[in-house]
Amino acid sequence: MAQDGPRRVRERFRDGERRPSAGLAPGYAQANLVSLPQEYAYDFLLFAQRNPKPCPVLEVLDAGAVASELAEGSDVRTDLPGYVVWENGERVAEVGEVTSYWRADLVTFLIGCSFTFETALRDHGVPVRHVDQGSNVPMFLTNQACRPAGRLSGNLVVSMRPIPAGLVAKAVRVTGMYPAVHGAPVHVGDPAALGVADVATPDFGDAVRFEPGDVPVFWACGVTPQAALMASKLPFAITHAPGHMFVTDVPDHAYAL
Amino acid sequence: MAQDGPRRVRERFRDGERRPSAGLAPGYAQANLVSLPQEYAYDFLLFAQRNPKPCPVLEVLDAGAVASELAEGSDVRTDLPGYVVWENGERVAEVGEVTSYWRADLVTFLIGCSFTFETALRDHGVPVRHVDQGSNVPMFLTNQACRPAGRLSGNLVVSMRPIPAGLVAKAVRVTGMYPAVHGAPVHVGDPAALGVADVATPDFGDAVRFEPGDVPVFWACGVTPQAALMASKLPFAITHAPGHMFVTDVPDHAYAL
Repeated sequence: MAQDGPRRVRERFRDGERRPSAGLAPGYAQANLVSLPQEYAYDFLLFAQRNPKPCPVLEVLDAGAVASELAEGSDVRTDLPGYVVWENGERVAEVGEVTSYWRADLVTFLIGCSFTFETALRDHGVPVRHVDQGSNVPMFLTNQACRPAGRLSGNLVVSMRPIPAGLVAKAVRVTGMYPAVHGAPVHVGDPAALGVADVATPDFGDAVRFEPGDVPVFWACGVTPQAALMASKLPFAITHAPGHMFVTDVPDHAYAL
Repeated sequence: MAQDGPRRVRERFRDGERRPSAGLAPGYAQANLVSLPQEYAYDFLLFAQRNPKPCPVLEVLDAGAVASELAEGSDVRTDLPGYVVWENGERVAEVGEVTSYWRADLVTFLIGCSFTFETALRDHGVPVRHVDQGSNVPMFLTNQACRPAGRLSGNLVVSMRPIPAGLVAKAVRVTGMYPAVHGAPVHVGDPAALGVADVATPDFGDAVRFEPGDVPVFWACGVTPQAALMASKLPFAITHAPGHMFVTDVPDHAYAL
């Protein structure tokens, strides 16, 4: 069966479908979303500048704008398959669209997502276990502090993929070609070194099954800003739900070196 | 004669020496400087995000801060060999230090400079004519509009190096390894296509002598923000003087892929 393209996937989400977006519209870049009051936009952009591995900014929509240049006919309030609404660092709603929460002073940041390089991994013969298993990628809050910026601070969040030991080097080289979507891993092996007690119980997303000989490999993750929203208790924000991304019209390779 | 290291070069500039910094402290990264009132910092950071080729941000100093993390014991008000002070888009002073102009609300942006990859070019056998000729690099205001951000807009500024035709491909590959300091050229050949009427009369810096068989090659330049300050008539700003850079303690290769 032919897979839906990015525009059709956005329409499905706009029509109410709610599911992680990993594996959908293969070959097209996906993005994390953070919408914040203008008042906090500088601190956020500076946080991204100081933490480019987890926060590679692909686009900034001016206050109140909802159409992304990365996706024709898009509306960032409705076109993702899941959102979290935040108040004072607490999740106050998990919803399928956010038009009723929207404010004219919200500046929207689209941030690169590692789902973008998963097609390249598979094309190079590196299995992507969570896609094969039809689940969301597992994500973990680490003990590694990001560099603070203004009112924003928090720890790094990582995504984890089990990679066959003999393919770790290939996974590093392939993903290293995609710095705008988190690039090479931040850590290979021992989860404890990141403060991750158990790779089977992710903080976000789904657990993934390891195959014999797999090594856990960790990439910086665009959920990191959500950890910063929590830690910094920002009065208001809207984000995507972890793993529920904005699917763009931009081919993956546009973000390759 | 042994060349001075970066700290000694900064001391010379602090003690009053005024000259372009091309070729000094070889092997160490150099940076463009823009200091703006906090009020304009978001627009500037967004301008940089939207125009990463000319404006790769290496560091942002918080309002009033003068010590860069990139250079031990540094003071960005005194350690460059030349500054321009701007009011309403006009140059109001060209000076050797800016302590008397400093304000507590100034946010300082350090931006990658193509001088950083010149040692790598020479190491790969690509001549750098302006260094060999002991002059500043020639820079040109092009007819290419940058993407605007808030109150900031303006055209791209480029630096130009004459490169032997048989070494252009090597120059592209070597500099492409340094995206944080402008990376690969934006244009090879015909200056008219950039709106540059005469490569012998640069808008900033010095004219450079071509050797037979040289092709003009153009790189995005960190003077681009100065063109935006002019075009946008920002009330106040301090920048480096073109070619008079902040010499850091960071080895060039730290910015290589």
